[in-house]
Amino acid sequence: MNYCSNCSHPVVFKEVEGDSHKRFVCDECDTIHYQNPRIVVGCLPIWEDQVLLASRAIEPREGFWNVPGGFMENGETMKEGAAREVMEETFAEVEVIRLHTTFAIPRINQVHMHFLAHLKNLDFKPGIESIDVRLFKESEIPWKDIAFHSSTFSLKQYFNNIGNGKEEVYSSFI
Amino acid sequence: MNYCSNCSHPVVFKEVEGDSHKRFVCDECDTIHYQNPRIVVGCLPIWEDQVLLASRAIEPREGFWNVPGGFMENGETMKEGAAREVMEETFAEVEVIRLHTTFAIPRINQVHMHFLAHLKNLDFKPGIESIDVRLFKESEIPWKDIAFHSSTFSLKQYFNNIGNGKEEVYSSFI
Repeated sequence: MNYCSNCSHPVVFKEVEGDSHKRFVCDECDTIHYQNPRIVVGCLPIWEDQVLLASRAIEPREGFWNVPGGFMENGETMKEGAAREVMEETFAEVEVIRLHTTFAIPRINQVHMHFLAHLKNLDFKPGIESIDVRLFKESEIPWKDIAFHSSTFSLKQYFNNIGNGKEEVYSSFI
Repeated sequence: MNYCSNCSHPVVFKEVEGDSHKRFVCDECDTIHYQNPRIVVGCLPIWEDQVLLASRAIEPREGFWNVPGGFMENGETMKEGAAREVMEETFAEVEVIRLHTTFAIPRINQVHMHFLAHLKNLDFKPGIESIDVRLFKESEIPWKDIAFHSSTFSLKQYFNNIGNGKEEVYSSFI
């Protein structure tokens, strides 16, 4: 951040009274520009003993498999955002069941939240950000070719806890 | 947002190819300025049959009681942020147990995440953003004077589910 998005004056990065963190501040219009982590919402769509994954058409991790998801948008709930991202990446219609995992990645200022979802039908196909979309049984999961740790975490927690009767939310670096 | 924070050129709010949402875009340096929901992290600190609440010294909802919390910062986990906010508002040392509730407020682009926590000792006192801090038994909770719906939700889910043996995460507008 170099300039104030409100008045275009150059900003300075400095201490703010009563605040625990340094901020980008505009000394012209007194706007404090806060920067905060972003939320990535996604779904693990379930069909019988299989789950739906998407192979990424874009960097980072192009060609690697992922739990469909993306950045949550203003004006939506987590559930709405998660279902929207699944539709954009896989054209799959899902019914979101509940929160499944949370995963903090402080290094890149992200919080991933994955939901379990019922896949409503098999009319899925790659969206613009995917090169392939397919169902995997547990034995077929390409563990070495999963795009992000949060997806590996969600997949392991799902298959390790199927049928245990718990409706637990699993958190990594909560 | 009026100006590009990268180059100070005026931005325009417009469609972006391959994107489902309009964005603030700088036609001078091609920066797309995404705006996303922010996360509010907090803890419900528990001491025997009581919970710790803080009365707000600042607007919005000055003078109303709240589950201690605030905006998650870059570079921290949810758990770290929740404990930091409790320290800032109440000087209380806590040991975070687990995620308790998630609460989406799309109208103001916020996601609240409250954790259950053990209060380590009784050395609490108001921080700079609080006018009072005290422990409440369930029968003493000032339900009409709670600052935000997310705090009411977390308090009700806590007291309604004590001792049921579940480690469930409760979500509103998930």
